[in-house]
Amino acid sequence: MIQSHYMIANAPRRQPLYVQIKQFLLRRIAEGEWLEHDALPSEWDLAAEMSVSQGTVRKALSELVADGLLYRQQGKGTFVSPVLSDWGSALLQSPGVFDEMPDRLSCEFLAISRMNASDDMAVALQLRRHAPMFRVRQLWRGQGRPVALDEAYLPAERFDGMEARWFRSGTGVYATLQQRFGVRVVESREQYRAVMLPREDASLLGLSGAALEEPVLSVLRLTFSSVGERVEWRQRYCLSRDLALLQKSC
Amino acid sequence: MIQSHYMIANAPRRQPLYVQIKQFLLRRIAEGEWLEHDALPSEWDLAAEMSVSQGTVRKALSELVADGLLYRQQGKGTFVSPVLSDWGSALLQSPGVFDEMPDRLSCEFLAISRMNASDDMAVALQLRRHAPMFRVRQLWRGQGRPVALDEAYLPAERFDGMEARWFRSGTGVYATLQQRFGVRVVESREQYRAVMLPREDASLLGLSGAALEEPVLSVLRLTFSSVGERVEWRQRYCLSRDLALLQKSC
Repeated sequence: MIQSHYMIANAPRRQPLYVQIKQFLLRRIAEGEWLEHDALPSEWDLAAEMSVSQGTVRKALSELVADGLLYRQQGKGTFVSPVLSDWGSALLQSPGVFDEMPDRLSCEFLAISRMNASDDMAVALQLRRHAPMFRVRQLWRGQGRPVALDEAYLPAERFDGMEARWFRSGTGVYATLQQRFGVRVVESREQYRAVMLPREDASLLGLSGAALEEPVLSVLRLTFSSVGERVEWRQRYCLSRDLALLQKSC
Repeated sequence: MIQSHYMIANAPRRQPLYVQIKQFLLRRIAEGEWLEHDALPSEWDLAAEMSVSQGTVRKALSELVADGLLYRQQGKGTFVSPVLSDWGSALLQSPGVFDEMPDRLSCEFLAISRMNASDDMAVALQLRRHAPMFRVRQLWRGQGRPVALDEAYLPAERFDGMEARWFRSGTGVYATLQQRFGVRVVESREQYRAVMLPREDASLLGLSGAALEEPVLSVLRLTFSSVGERVEWRQRYCLSRDLALLQKSC
């Protein structure tokens, strides 16, 4: 009953009850009550706990399953879907060495800021010209050394209320979208190019002097949610002198 | 009977008959008697035509199916498998424009030469140090303009007898491996990097002057056959100023 009050106090009144239940379950996942691949309590237990009907719980769960945020296993229950890593599926290897185990990468949150969409960005994300965006900057490290710099751009109106503290705890953009907004990232398209690193980004990647004259790998990612919504434009610069990005064909 | 004589005259005598039938069928595919997705005659017809038992034909066909060179459709027959394009699955687009239909690319055969494997190449292809290699160079064009230069390296002992005239007709490396050697390419790993174009390759890509100072996208591909054999090391340089290589996540 306490949780039910809490939920209703924090959700706009006009929303149907099952939508409130959806949001409440997402918040509990975001707060770590259930982790990836954890089983949720039964419909019956959830209904009793939140003082709502089992039918309302079933409807909320079904929508969360349809959106890919939960998954069902026949006869076993309903589980929390894993979150895609902000890094993506490519691996960093030494150039020409295909059988190498890549380093684990760590992600450091740098800053969140507001800006307007560039023309290409607005078209790709199907937004109006100059639409307001959040920009989340992250630095990737392998063995402690910087390897890549990310700028993730997210539509500010769609993801209203985004806060820096959500990222400071080490939670990535995709975990945030999943846990705070019920948006599950499942797919991306990536454009690869060779470019010279913008000067203002060089120091973040630890580059100076002659290294400034070296090309870097640009990865431009357009990210899609499980329901086909275009949710992110991400510009990555990867150091390329001693590193190559491995992709497998499919 | 004439074809049967032809076959036996051109195949080493010590090979079992079904292996000779396999090679004969591959040669007929290479010569264009059956194209991609064409149905082969029935086992009975092939046996009668080549004056061998139906069991021998069946064994040859089964191996060709197992190697991926032919495929079966229940109740419909046995068909010629399509060949993977030398280009691969990535698309060339304008940078930042994800919804563009890419140009059709054409491939021009430049030359075939012999050389020794580099150390990385030998390790990746599981060959001995300095193993002899064929190098096949190809130039890719979009709307008539050069867009990428390929150097495909193939183990010379494995693909003994490779001839330049096979490529001059416009047949790519993967079609040649499939039709002449019964090796079907199905999978690759690709390493992406940003590099400066080697000077000696610049003129082939139509670059001169200030354009020589621009980085290009390096794609290093390790190619696998349907039975997991490592058959090719391919170094590609893609012009990157107005082009990006698109990959979809899987």
